[in-house]
Amino acid sequence: MRKHSDKPQLASKLVLRRVAIDTYRENVAYLHRDCAVYRAEGFQALSKVEVRANGRHILATLNVVDDPHIVACDELGLSEDAFAQMAVTDGHPASVSQAEPPQSIGALRRKLAGERLGREDFLDIVRDIAELHYSKIELSAFVVATNRDELDREEVYFLTEAMVATGRTLNWHEPLVVDKHCIGGIPGNRTSMLVVPIVAAHGLLCPKTSSRAITSPAGTADTMEVLAKVELPFDQLADIVRAHRGCLAWGGAAHLSPADDVLISVERPLAIDSPGQMVASILSKKIAAGSTHLVLDIPIGPSAKVRSMPDAQRLRRLFEYVAARMHLSLDVIVTDGRQPVGNGIGPVLEARDVMRVLENDARAPNDLRQKSLRLAGRLIECHPDVRGGDGFAIARDILDSGRALAKMNAIIAAQGAKPFDHNHPQLGALTFDICASESGVVTGIDNLQVARIARLAGAPKVIGAGIDLFHKLGDAVASGEPLYRVHAGFQSDLDFARQASAKSTGYTIGRAEDVPHVFTEF
Amino acid sequence: MRKHSDKPQLASKLVLRRVAIDTYRENVAYLHRDCAVYRAEGFQALSKVEVRANGRHILATLNVVDDPHIVACDELGLSEDAFAQMAVTDGHPASVSQAEPPQSIGALRRKLAGERLGREDFLDIVRDIAELHYSKIELSAFVVATNRDELDREEVYFLTEAMVATGRTLNWHEPLVVDKHCIGGIPGNRTSMLVVPIVAAHGLLCPKTSSRAITSPAGTADTMEVLAKVELPFDQLADIVRAHRGCLAWGGAAHLSPADDVLISVERPLAIDSPGQMVASILSKKIAAGSTHLVLDIPIGPSAKVRSMPDAQRLRRLFEYVAARMHLSLDVIVTDGRQPVGNGIGPVLEARDVMRVLENDARAPNDLRQKSLRLAGRLIECHPDVRGGDGFAIARDILDSGRALAKMNAIIAAQGAKPFDHNHPQLGALTFDICASESGVVTGIDNLQVARIARLAGAPKVIGAGIDLFHKLGDAVASGEPLYRVHAGFQSDLDFARQASAKSTGYTIGRAEDVPHVFTEF
Repeated sequence: MRKHSDKPQLASKLVLRRVAIDTYRENVAYLHRDCAVYRAEGFQALSKVEVRANGRHILATLNVVDDPHIVACDELGLSEDAFAQMAVTDGHPASVSQAEPPQSIGALRRKLAGERLGREDFLDIVRDIAELHYSKIELSAFVVATNRDELDREEVYFLTEAMVATGRTLNWHEPLVVDKHCIGGIPGNRTSMLVVPIVAAHGLLCPKTSSRAITSPAGTADTMEVLAKVELPFDQLADIVRAHRGCLAWGGAAHLSPADDVLISVERPLAIDSPGQMVASILSKKIAAGSTHLVLDIPIGPSAKVRSMPDAQRLRRLFEYVAARMHLSLDVIVTDGRQPVGNGIGPVLEARDVMRVLENDARAPNDLRQKSLRLAGRLIECHPDVRGGDGFAIARDILDSGRALAKMNAIIAAQGAKPFDHNHPQLGALTFDICASESGVVTGIDNLQVARIARLAGAPKVIGAGIDLFHKLGDAVASGEPLYRVHAGFQSDLDFARQASAKSTGYTIGRAEDVPHVFTEF
Repeated sequence: MRKHSDKPQLASKLVLRRVAIDTYRENVAYLHRDCAVYRAEGFQALSKVEVRANGRHILATLNVVDDPHIVACDELGLSEDAFAQMAVTDGHPASVSQAEPPQSIGALRRKLAGERLGREDFLDIVRDIAELHYSKIELSAFVVATNRDELDREEVYFLTEAMVATGRTLNWHEPLVVDKHCIGGIPGNRTSMLVVPIVAAHGLLCPKTSSRAITSPAGTADTMEVLAKVELPFDQLADIVRAHRGCLAWGGAAHLSPADDVLISVERPLAIDSPGQMVASILSKKIAAGSTHLVLDIPIGPSAKVRSMPDAQRLRRLFEYVAARMHLSLDVIVTDGRQPVGNGIGPVLEARDVMRVLENDARAPNDLRQKSLRLAGRLIECHPDVRGGDGFAIARDILDSGRALAKMNAIIAAQGAKPFDHNHPQLGALTFDICASESGVVTGIDNLQVARIARLAGAPKVIGAGIDLFHKLGDAVASGEPLYRVHAGFQSDLDFARQASAKSTGYTIGRAEDVPHVFTEF
């Protein structure tokens, strides 16, 4: 049996060494198998250890090394990110010990057992998540255990509050800070890139931070990145917002609701998107960003995230309940989600559509224009001086006059413009067309299937990949006429997309009276 | 934009290199950041890649390296286990590509959405799990999504069947192959180590494979390992069973129901133990091991896994339903789970108790002896020649005559004996005693709390650590009299155990009439 007195003596002998391995967000510690500490502590490979040096401490996953060129017996190796967090140079003394399980593990287990959790429980769990104390196993257990309807609305409020409390919060020192958000699921729905310049041109403060695509072919951040840099240091972002009343940047760098980013890293591979998590994720980011007023877009359609008006109303009430508890003024708008918005699906194609609308180009997709004007109008009406119903016309004037384009160009320049010619966008050079198999009217476009084909074609990673839609719902098409064109950057991507569209094009052709009715008035 | 034609050319240029890092069960691949394949494929650190060489292929997690001493630009590094799986030497040509998501991911997502899955779905999921195609995230999503009552009994049957089908199955070519199992939760409950030698001495074939502790202070494998080697190659195990009619080995090496081992690696940190998973886990192992008859022990008590007779009956029916579908003869026995069985808790302490029973030592704990005789008796009655009710007496004769001890010693010798003196067991040298705070009768012993204290004291990792109980339910104790002694191997473990027992000793002292009634007759 090992003597306990070995422990502290040996632990103090280790010196830190940077191991030039990039393990992304996972901290990895490397100990040599013959290292006395490794043997004395009885560590297991892959167990969590706590590393202390320079008054700092981090958690890391242990890898055991048999090659003294990587780490020697008296060294404690750290992967690049982990090493950087210690803010020391090679050779700094360090100690390592078994990591305690996260404090909130008891609360997590109670949730797994089906219990309702309280405010403190959520705060404990979310703090541990934000501080990266949860393993992938614990994270995904939390995500699945709070999936579907497992959280009641009070719990969703607690979760939202905890997500705000464990990150940075911004205060713009203005009474009216507006934002808009869509719950997602509709390809091509790039209204933010129109709403922000319109309302900012009107003078409203709109510090829009966006996300990258999770399961879609492009997020606003991916699309904006075609035109400008989106990964900006927070201070620069704040300067841009103050100078231009708005920005279109990626939100990850601002450290707003950091737990949300961690949770998304698990939700993404599982394709989980439950009401409670959606509400907490969206509202926590907006509140942390200092928004006072939010317009929320909930599209309904046969292949949208929300497929019926009762579901939309249930989701609306949950958003409204939590927003009210968090003192955020919320305006929910149920919109037409029967088909993609605009013509392009994929970062470059969507950027093209957005710029055409801003430039009042004849080729601009009208649905994208109209929807953006409506959302912008509602935000403009948040101002006490604007009468209800006047917002749309104000927004339209701003767009038609070119003031929105000027604002967009100013924001692009401030964030760092990238070369982009919307007349000759750099689309994926490999293409194929999908044509109508019969004559008739387009009666359905499956949002999920066209998104899937666009992703298989390479979007959003290959920014020029995606789908260019030639026809929308209600359009008459002749047999053999192209419905859409798929763009890809790699042959294998093109082949995958072709296989998927051969299985199902995503389009249905029928009679004019078969076009599904809009579920909503907008 | 990258040209797709770069891809196959570059991929073929890599050569394999063993990176002497032990990443335990997780395959890790290392690519240099300047490696053309890394740049062309657009890999992300931590993404899953598929490595092909020598006609084999494995999945691995990618780490990006900045140090050419670890891997150079034309090399593909593999962690030790991963490298061994390719069965080649350094410098062998290899290719690497993005891993496709596991085939069954669609079925997993349907389960996450709350759907009922079919036979093929479970087969697909379990095969992917057994073949290590699931990430930790996907694994734990499956475990949580099938937690509690999420699986109906038909689904539990499909899961069990799939777990058997995706591993090795044994056929002993005998009509009667018996086994026993306890659902767990009762510290010190080492009946297997008595039942196996008794029934094997009687001539029944009992190829017992056991597990290590998951959340308890000792599993049968941990305890048997005090006396003999338990990690044996399968062929040796089979020889021992044929020669001695029984064995007491760790089941992991036999590749029986391999998906179960993978699932347990996730269930353990989450402390998840749902009825469906329990039934599938236990029955799949038994059926794969070739058992025809199983006696199952379900203890009930205020701090047992099952806390009421209705719960026990519900669990019994689930076990019986699945066993019947799988053609396993099952005999469920509901037992007294109000307190630990025996006196010792922890590997060495429990081995001591077992050997004392076998040796008919006056210090042998009678409850362990009686319970083991009853279970062994029920197994003996599986034989068509034994009349119902006669088994107990047969088992007692075998134990009292020393034939069980002789059989145990033969099994120990065959597996590889370790030095063990039950009169002087090697207990953890650091100790403290917990004494009665008042005079009275022991009216409660909390299984969970004493298990927790024993684990904090170091069990099962520190084999001599644990708790030695001096008094059991119904015993009269005087104020200040020791209730139990805690043994530890390290000061820090001792301190943790002391803190926990200071918070709650796990014992309640009261009046004789307050001792809870046995919920069952046995």
